Amino acid sequence: MASTGQAKTPGRRADAQRSITAILEAAVTALSRNPEASVSEIAKAAGVGRVTLYGHFPNRDDLVEAAFARAIDEGHGALDAVDLSGDARQALTRLIHSSWLLVNQSRSLLLAAQEVLPPSRIRDLHAGPVERVEGLVKRGQDEGVFRSDLSTAWLVGVMHSVMHNAADEINAGRLDSDEAPAFITATVLAAFTPPGSRVPA
Amino acid sequence: MASTGQAKTPGRRADAQRSITAILEAAVTALSRNPEASVSEIAKAAGVGRVTLYGHFPNRDDLVEAAFARAIDEGHGALDAVDLSGDARQALTRLIHSSWLLVNQSRSLLLAAQEVLPPSRIRDLHAGPVERVEGLVKRGQDEGVFRSDLSTAWLVGVMHSVMHNAADEINAGRLDSDEAPAFITATVLAAFTPPGSRVPA
Repeated sequence: MASTGQAKTPGRRADAQRSITAILEAAVTALSRNPEASVSEIAKAAGVGRVTLYGHFPNRDDLVEAAFARAIDEGHGALDAVDLSGDARQALTRLIHSSWLLVNQSRSLLLAAQEVLPPSRIRDLHAGPVERVEGLVKRGQDEGVFRSDLSTAWLVGVMHSVMHNAADEINAGRLDSDEAPAFITATVLAAFTPPGSRVPA
Repeated sequence: MASTGQAKTPGRRADAQRSITAILEAAVTALSRNPEASVSEIAKAAGVGRVTLYGHFPNRDDLVEAAFARAIDEGHGALDAVDLSGDARQALTRLIHSSWLLVNQSRSLLLAAQEVLPPSRIRDLHAGPVERVEGLVKRGQDEGVFRSDLSTAWLVGVMHSVMHNAADEINAGRLDSDEAPAFITATVLAAFTPPGSRVPA
């Protein structure tokens, strides 16, 4: 009874919240270094016991998913600073470059997430970033800069897969990480060019 | 001792081979209908006991991977019939349409594979189809029909991800399966167009 009472006090709730934050920060850091990072390793880095960690995240898959979601949320926040006004093609280029920095720095965490989550869940967790891209793509379509014969959702999906393809290709040693932003931008801008128009040089 | 001796006789080996073939055929069929198909269901459809199945495939992940590999091999064989000569753009269009029929009919099996295998393994299992695409893309680049400022491996990866993106989008209910071949072809041909050239209408 005492423990039930204690669990409901604001102090206990704040403690739990601090634990969760510490665990997630440690998980993001550890998985961004090594996609195979273990739960024990993450608990140790977070300064909590394994029992505490398992109390919040019943298994490693849950922890990886929560860490990945946190990294996306933080990245999404960072992208607020990107200027999406003006020429839609230039705005998209800026957004790709900034987004790529985040994807590239989380390549190992993405790999960990891909090991435990299906692509549909990976994409769903990107709801925030997807919405941002969607708004820009729609504007570009309305202005006639991007093709309108394919749906906005499709073009957003293409950009998402081309970026993740770059991460996979770097992990597989087939692409140099420095080349990636130029490759992604060239591919996406060409894919978005209206039929009959020239691919930007 | 007797069983060790028996295991080495040609009759036993042929029996084992027949079991494996029956199991893989049943797995491809079952997983192409339902990505969550269980091992028991597959054993039953194959007409073998669970113990026999587990003797060949120690766990469900192994079975899904082997079934997926088999479907790709069969599909790869079927693509031998596609005419890859003549205009590289038209040849690629034919290859995309025929490949898509196979991907679309195995969408559920692909989903099952994506649940248990990382993207790098999915891509590695496509080594045969990848090689075929690679030859065609390289020829198109040499002829100046496809862009050469991006590597052949990158363009092949883009085609692979755009096709799998279509499968994911259909599974998510955001794309109609009838629209997919046109969407994939339009996207890939645009992405492959040399900078400064017009995107095919």
